[in-house]
Amino acid sequence: MTPSIVTAQALQEFIHSAFAQQGLPDADAAQVARLMTEADLQGSDGHGVIRLPQYIKRIQAGGINKQPDIRIVEERPAMAVVDGDNGMGHLVVSKAVDIAIEKARTCGVAWVSTRYSNHAGPASLYARRPLEHDMLGLYFAVGNANHLPPWGGMDMLLSTNPIAAGIPTDEEPPVVLDMATTVAAYGKVKAKAKRGEPMPEGWMIDREGKPLLDPNRSNEGFLLPIGAHKGYGLALIVGLLAGTLGGAAMGRDVIDFNSDFKTVTNTGQAILVIDLSAFGDPQLFKHNVDRLVRDIRDSARLPGVERIWLPGEQSHEKRARYRDGGIPVSAGVMSELHTLASQLGIPALKETAFA
Amino acid sequence: MTPSIVTAQALQEFIHSAFAQQGLPDADAAQVARLMTEADLQGSDGHGVIRLPQYIKRIQAGGINKQPDIRIVEERPAMAVVDGDNGMGHLVVSKAVDIAIEKARTCGVAWVSTRYSNHAGPASLYARRPLEHDMLGLYFAVGNANHLPPWGGMDMLLSTNPIAAGIPTDEEPPVVLDMATTVAAYGKVKAKAKRGEPMPEGWMIDREGKPLLDPNRSNEGFLLPIGAHKGYGLALIVGLLAGTLGGAAMGRDVIDFNSDFKTVTNTGQAILVIDLSAFGDPQLFKHNVDRLVRDIRDSARLPGVERIWLPGEQSHEKRARYRDGGIPVSAGVMSELHTLASQLGIPALKETAFA
Repeated sequence: MTPSIVTAQALQEFIHSAFAQQGLPDADAAQVARLMTEADLQGSDGHGVIRLPQYIKRIQAGGINKQPDIRIVEERPAMAVVDGDNGMGHLVVSKAVDIAIEKARTCGVAWVSTRYSNHAGPASLYARRPLEHDMLGLYFAVGNANHLPPWGGMDMLLSTNPIAAGIPTDEEPPVVLDMATTVAAYGKVKAKAKRGEPMPEGWMIDREGKPLLDPNRSNEGFLLPIGAHKGYGLALIVGLLAGTLGGAAMGRDVIDFNSDFKTVTNTGQAILVIDLSAFGDPQLFKHNVDRLVRDIRDSARLPGVERIWLPGEQSHEKRARYRDGGIPVSAGVMSELHTLASQLGIPALKETAFA
Repeated sequence: MTPSIVTAQALQEFIHSAFAQQGLPDADAAQVARLMTEADLQGSDGHGVIRLPQYIKRIQAGGINKQPDIRIVEERPAMAVVDGDNGMGHLVVSKAVDIAIEKARTCGVAWVSTRYSNHAGPASLYARRPLEHDMLGLYFAVGNANHLPPWGGMDMLLSTNPIAAGIPTDEEPPVVLDMATTVAAYGKVKAKAKRGEPMPEGWMIDREGKPLLDPNRSNEGFLLPIGAHKGYGLALIVGLLAGTLGGAAMGRDVIDFNSDFKTVTNTGQAILVIDLSAFGDPQLFKHNVDRLVRDIRDSARLPGVERIWLPGEQSHEKRARYRDGGIPVSAGVMSELHTLASQLGIPALKETAFA
């Protein structure tokens, strides 16, 4: 089935009205809607409006604080810990990034950790935010369900803990990396199951350590980390930085938010912001990144490779395309959103016909 | 051939005398010797005394400044850029870490970048240094030779750019990650060639994109990044953080220090230090890490797996074993060190007979 096409504006208004109907303060509903729409706009469709029914279910189950007191609980000149009071993760992390940007302006560098936060959408949204201030961002998060055992193990004590980075450029699109520390994120496994396709070897193994290819049997196995023991180490370090350091959940304390809608997740994230101007002329830095980007893009390609991409370039192109031509929303998601709209008694998300 | 066994003290004195003979100030020669010995003690044998002949060759060729003025050239409360004045990397990075620790004490978090530094040995040496202050370290470096093309490409514009992290614990060994962003570091390829063994599939590909298994043909191919495009993205970001940000070489500006002993490398590294006490009670953090370490170690294992290791645990065990029982040095390296000793006119490295 061909996807529906919706405008960013229609999508944002729809999400906004859903959260407002649930009793989120209007400004908060608007901010979450803006960020979720940004996720879909850049093609992070596993982290945008597809999550709305799940978020609403959690709010209705009492698993989210609709009127949180998001506040700094620990602070030094170049750092803070933000307690999200179990509010929507998008609000908590946004506040954390704003604080980090302000602190980086004076200190050159700043780190802000969150605790009692929640799932906040794609990591790149937050790593990108410092860019407009000529700052760079590094972002770490604890995933909201454990799908990864330690290397050699079977107990899923780790999540796909992502790392994201946003690096400013001058004329080129910014370099934006956003990666799970597993070969495939769990959402990709679910997508394979929905499409009835097998998984490639290397995504998952079963409890015998053998390749698991049937995505419908994914609960009988585990995700594999990138680079074997290296990805396990990375997932662990990211979890310690984003979770344990700030007093958030990690390891066996992580709540699986796909099956438990009520327990407070105590999700942790961390953002590091670096002010380029502290290191020299920001323009020179951005020029140097541009030069590197062009060196890479124009470099020799392996046989059969059409183009060498920079991290974030495909999202950048999608953003421009979807902004003009609308955002594709799959038939399955569209149908779930229609059901949600009638449950909540809000206007349905309108499909748009483009010329 | 069985390796020779040397004591840490004998090794450190030998390295010290080599650098002193070359005209490094005595305190500098001692510091480099101590750090190189620490590398061998923890089993990082690709980064310890094995590098001594190469370092000496570079000093003799005029590629290293023997009496550098290592100094801060940019500074804000939570950051600095250290210009290494082309001194030995070990000295430059040590100074950077010391500055970062001091700044983290007041600011909570601090970042120090180096420029005009040099190869500094294993990344973990520096990521570990904040541990004794109840601080954690994250370290990034630009590798000293480009062996990695962008994903889909053939031009080696990137290096194995490593990431290291040192995380304090209470009773458990510290969690210390030290990883190249390629599947194998280039040193491992050289080791395979020396032993006459083929490489496993997944380490390198040739210019057709096909697996390259013969380590003697390594110059006909490229290293592969961990997690395919993900490792490429990581290597790029690490290079931007450790190189470009601080004004050090990155991309096509990186000098291959294996073939060029004279040109200033302008190597860059970066250390981030985080003071646990800014985030709450350091004892609680360390207790939580201990608990996670034990959960992981005691978790269920895949068939055939004898033990689940934590990052840094094997180095930790080696350090204790080598401290007591001596450090193994391969016959090949031993012979190179004997040649070096007679060239420099210093006493040879003495092998030790242990009971």
